[in-house]
Amino acid sequence: RRARELGLAPGILPPGPLNAITDVAGVRVGQVTVIAGEGTRTGVTAILPHAQNPFAHRVPAGVFAMNGFGKMAGVTQVQELGELETPILLTNTLAVGRAVEALVDWTLAQPGNEAVRSVNAVVGETNDGRLNDIRARGIGAAEMRDALAIAAPGPVAEGSVGAGTGTMAFGWKGGIGTASRVLPPALGGWTVGALVQANYGGALVMDGVPVGRLLGRYFLADHVAQQADADGSVVVVVATDAPLSDRNLQRLARRAMAGIARTGAAFSDGSGDYAIAFATHPEVIRAPEKRAAEARYAEWPNDRVSPLFVAAIEATEEAVLNALTMATTVESRIGGRRVTGRALPLDRLAELLARR
Amino acid sequence: RRARELGLAPGILPPGPLNAITDVAGVRVGQVTVIAGEGTRTGVTAILPHAQNPFAHRVPAGVFAMNGFGKMAGVTQVQELGELETPILLTNTLAVGRAVEALVDWTLAQPGNEAVRSVNAVVGETNDGRLNDIRARGIGAAEMRDALAIAAPGPVAEGSVGAGTGTMAFGWKGGIGTASRVLPPALGGWTVGALVQANYGGALVMDGVPVGRLLGRYFLADHVAQQADADGSVVVVVATDAPLSDRNLQRLARRAMAGIARTGAAFSDGSGDYAIAFATHPEVIRAPEKRAAEARYAEWPNDRVSPLFVAAIEATEEAVLNALTMATTVESRIGGRRVTGRALPLDRLAELLARR
Amino acid sequence: RRARELGLAPGILPPGPLNAITDVAGVRVGQVTVIAGEGTRTGVTAILPHAQNPFAHRVPAGVFAMNGFGKMAGVTQVQELGELETPILLTNTLAVGRAVEALVDWTLAQPGNEAVRSVNAVVGETNDGRLNDIRARGIGAAEMRDALAIAAPGPVAEGSVGAGTGTMAFGWKGGIGTASRVLPPALGGWTVGALVQANYGGALVMDGVPVGRLLGRYFLADHVAQQADADGSVVVVVATDAPLSDRNLQRLARRAMAGIARTGAAFSDGSGDYAIAFATHPEVIRAPEKRAAEARYAEWPNDRVSPLFVAAIEATEEAVLNALTMATTVESRIGGRRVTGRALPLDRLAELLARR
Amino acid sequence: RRARELGLAPGILPPGPLNAITDVAGVRVGQVTVIAGEGTRTGVTAILPHAQNPFAHRVPAGVFAMNGFGKMAGVTQVQELGELETPILLTNTLAVGRAVEALVDWTLAQPGNEAVRSVNAVVGETNDGRLNDIRARGIGAAEMRDALAIAAPGPVAEGSVGAGTGTMAFGWKGGIGTASRVLPPALGGWTVGALVQANYGGALVMDGVPVGRLLGRYFLADHVAQQADADGSVVVVVATDAPLSDRNLQRLARRAMAGIARTGAAFSDGSGDYAIAFATHPEVIRAPEKRAAEARYAEWPNDRVSPLFVAAIEATEEAVLNALTMATTVESRIGGRRVTGRALPLDRLAELLARR
Repeated sequence: RRARELGLAPGILPPGPLNAITDVAGVRVGQVTVIAGEGTRTGVTAILPHAQNPFAHRVPAGVFAMNGFGKMAGVTQVQELGELETPILLTNTLAVGRAVEALVDWTLAQPGNEAVRSVNAVVGETNDGRLNDIRARGIGAAEMRDALAIAAPGPVAEGSVGAGTGTMAFGWKGGIGTASRVLPPALGGWTVGALVQANYGGALVMDGVPVGRLLGRYFLADHVAQQADADGSVVVVVATDAPLSDRNLQRLARRAMAGIARTGAAFSDGSGDYAIAFATHPEVIRAPEKRAAEARYAEWPNDRVSPLFVAAIEATEEAVLNALTMATTVESRIGGRRVTGRALPLDRLAELLARR
Repeated sequence: RRARELGLAPGILPPGPLNAITDVAGVRVGQVTVIAGEGTRTGVTAILPHAQNPFAHRVPAGVFAMNGFGKMAGVTQVQELGELETPILLTNTLAVGRAVEALVDWTLAQPGNEAVRSVNAVVGETNDGRLNDIRARGIGAAEMRDALAIAAPGPVAEGSVGAGTGTMAFGWKGGIGTASRVLPPALGGWTVGALVQANYGGALVMDGVPVGRLLGRYFLADHVAQQADADGSVVVVVATDAPLSDRNLQRLARRAMAGIARTGAAFSDGSGDYAIAFATHPEVIRAPEKRAAEARYAEWPNDRVSPLFVAAIEATEEAVLNALTMATTVESRIGGRRVTGRALPLDRLAELLARR
Repeated sequence: RRARELGLAPGILPPGPLNAITDVAGVRVGQVTVIAGEGTRTGVTAILPHAQNPFAHRVPAGVFAMNGFGKMAGVTQVQELGELETPILLTNTLAVGRAVEALVDWTLAQPGNEAVRSVNAVVGETNDGRLNDIRARGIGAAEMRDALAIAAPGPVAEGSVGAGTGTMAFGWKGGIGTASRVLPPALGGWTVGALVQANYGGALVMDGVPVGRLLGRYFLADHVAQQADADGSVVVVVATDAPLSDRNLQRLARRAMAGIARTGAAFSDGSGDYAIAFATHPEVIRAPEKRAAEARYAEWPNDRVSPLFVAAIEATEEAVLNALTMATTVESRIGGRRVTGRALPLDRLAELLARR
Repeated sequence: RRARELGLAPGILPPGPLNAITDVAGVRVGQVTVIAGEGTRTGVTAILPHAQNPFAHRVPAGVFAMNGFGKMAGVTQVQELGELETPILLTNTLAVGRAVEALVDWTLAQPGNEAVRSVNAVVGETNDGRLNDIRARGIGAAEMRDALAIAAPGPVAEGSVGAGTGTMAFGWKGGIGTASRVLPPALGGWTVGALVQANYGGALVMDGVPVGRLLGRYFLADHVAQQADADGSVVVVVATDAPLSDRNLQRLARRAMAGIARTGAAFSDGSGDYAIAFATHPEVIRAPEKRAAEARYAEWPNDRVSPLFVAAIEATEEAVLNALTMATTVESRIGGRRVTGRALPLDRLAELLARR
């Protein structure tokens, strides 16, 4: 069940109809889960900003590394040009090379891209090596191309799917989660959606309830009690239909990390914690003709971006809650050793929530 | 009363004996409160890393702007050289020039600095213009030099004092707050202290309790209920006795912002949100002889910094709670209009806490 | 005489009519030279982007620190918001506090700014302490306000004036220099102007001629031959009438440093080397009404900015040449010791140029 | 012939015995050139910091993007941790995915890495698509592993080899180039080496001689005369045996771009211009035991790094000259169209040099 059905509704702003990143019109998500043999428990999640050729119709974008111990590909070009020219793929740490390969293949093959000879593939990753036999390299470019091919608007599968198949968070099974927020009309009426690949740790807090402490499972617990690893990483993808500049999208990406902080993250040394934000408003899209000459772009002013910041924080926080409450237990065997990523026990969570 | 006396004890690590930045041996704090006439409600807080000449005995340091809409002075040199060469002053937005002047005066006047002709003054600020007639410029370099002169180890005054005299946070009176954390010996046994100048907003959360929402005072409340301004800024100073490199201190500064996030910050457009962290371990201090030739420095490794990150997050979070619970109501008159910054009602807070 | 009259014409693009930053329509420069007593040899240079209230009518801007060992004020807010809200003042290292004070005073006093209570003063500096008794603090806020008051379009005084009164470059007298470039109509027809406060070192190269080496005066010469100090700093202000976004202005600022590199700069540890760029195109100015709601801004595309980059490099390079060829010898006495900053010998330079 | 044999000896410091990056003890280079069919003209260049397992024995490192329009992989982790954990591979733009894959394979296979499950592959690239049929993807992970396997100390092949097989620079054939500088003993006696993959443009300047202008081939020439494309990119790898911190290595990387600037680079929009610097001094290497606990590291102080900055600038500049003078003409056929990258005519260059 999703967090909101369990009574977890962080923040003050309402969600959109799907409470998902796909509430931002045009955004599409495709996921492929790879479960194979004893130990392959991994996958890929693709996010497309719109239905057009993303190389031609570029969306403005910003990226932020709260902790850059990660392998995200494509970062410097997004920073330099303030735009995305490919879909975003999320996968496991050792599959980034293949994901880059897949995005390059896909981009070269799009109609209209026959002359393209430079592609900035954007790939995020977290390390699912606790449940996935990551050294076995069980996912390839084919699965990644599949994820791009099946991407669709509408509800998004959460939990132990796609790039979240093998991830852990706060000592429980983590995964993919998503959520959204809609601003009141007086504040612009914009939608902000977030999707997370949650694989990080600390001491879990769910809408203010210190679940990690109450259930005795948190980073450093061994030193005061039972330990949960804090490493692992999180990648957040934020989308909005507001006409934000690349600079304000970079600011939005930073706020996503405040949402992660609210869940009790330790932002530990080994956790590669990144956010990337893009805008889909028609008047900020850098279409071919606008990229060829002086053009006019819409821009939502600095003075009015704060509500969007709140929306990004809240959507990210709730996306993590969804990743945890939707995740299902995953079993695996790595190097002859049986490992289990147990889902957060929703019954015990319900008890904790009932007490507040 | 301090937050911990009220039952607010965020996080998992224990505080130091003073639960203050001065638990880091050598750190000294000096504050001057300026209340004058109808409208001057401001002040200055000085933080010195140790008792030696800071220009000669430089501490490694890192700085992070979560939201750079602020006037912090001295940032680029700290980034470039990874060190502090002056004390840190906190004051109001329009007094930064005078604070720079005061630090330059003070530094030129230190024994041994007779030949110094370059000074990188580090000054943080928040805008106390809601309670302080900031345009009247009621604080000068003299008060700032006084704060430096009276700086001392030991307990630190909190609430409506020094640079917190006129600040507001989450719609209530904010101010100066401090807290600390001590790591278990197996994790290094280091101390991390934080001091905040809290003048920001969002929807206040105190150790997980959504106080802002429960008391109906939060940013954007008008649009769903009663509004609290989200702008204003926060500056966090983090100190540690661990032998951290400047790079890892910059990472520590980033984690301070996760502590701010946990209090419900909106990180709004107009909030200049900065953290600066320094280390006082004797073997990381850049003494004159070490700055003249190849030298050896102690370094705590990347692989073991995560507990320090948790300490920085928690100390920062609790410092904010202290700023709020220790703050006293401040009245003022600006432009003929009476304004009041009311202290957080501790009785109502106690009720909310009793319920959890 | 200016560099171009001596046959030095670096680059491939033509200069504007004044070959000065004031070729960018609207840009105004004001300078006050302070020569007092035996040792005060300093000053201030003010650059205003246009004739309107800069706090209300903000210009987009970007800033880059090639070497952040400097005290430039206002950096993080320019980075965060991508805009200037005050004029830019250049002065000496220990006068930054007063310059901030002066810009705050000036801004608060502008008609229409009666309610302003936050000001991001942008101040650059270099250390003129080799010729100026900098510890005597011989310049105050009054001179800085004067520089703002007398700022005007038209020709700009160069050499040992304003903020260049006491500066040295490459072992000779440095100072203020300016130059400009105009793009052909097919490339947009835009103008780019640069103004430098040159106080840095290395081995001087003038339009490819290794003047420093040929005259035996360069950084590290003692170790191979006669030494010139490499420290000191340079600040470059770049203006353009092209409709550039703040992101592309930051890129333009980076290119200014390539112009500095071409002059033989060492970018030494102690040299604070900064560039700040702004755009004055009417459709990029963030006027009050545009800052209040969704607005449309003109933008010159990424794909067509390269010629502007070349223009920024060349204008900066030539501005440095002008600073050196226009500088006049300055004599001073500091701490009882006579010091002289000799102008580059133009007769010997002419000989060197005749040989190529 | 190398630039120095032609009389081109930029700067003031002497080169090392090989005038190559391999003058830094321990550094090894391996290159594989791929010429296949009509259009495949590409390759890979591998740089290893030392002969040990680089994942276990990490070298401190810093990276700088002067213009981030490129696909360099591994950037954020180098920034976050200040270290390299793999060799560096240089290749073409569309082969980055495969190069990441190759580095992951190679690292997982190293003895002692049996438990490694996270690898930060560092890959630089430039776009050789003017001479190489880049969309044909003519290089694979096998060639990349070969380059790693054959890496050796000693002289380094330059010009149209390895990752420089298909590159162009300033309108002529570019390629791989390398050079070094040695500091006098009084300045530390350290060696700095640089290796470039030159594929960029502007108006070529060789040791001050404006070769591009004199031969009428430069960026924007069409608008004043004959055009050379400015896009394409450059990657510089800088090595030193000085005990530099990661922060000072990042500063060294920035200076490499000053060396590129001196060659007349336009740093155009489409040119991904990166430098990465690492240090091999035994007392800065992060060996396993030093990464597990508090350790002591050697550090060359800020106050004495400037000569190393000069060395990095000069070595980079000369490396580019070598790339150009050593390059040989390359012919290709792409999409049925014959293309030729002509080597810089050394006879005409000699004439130009004779005149100065």
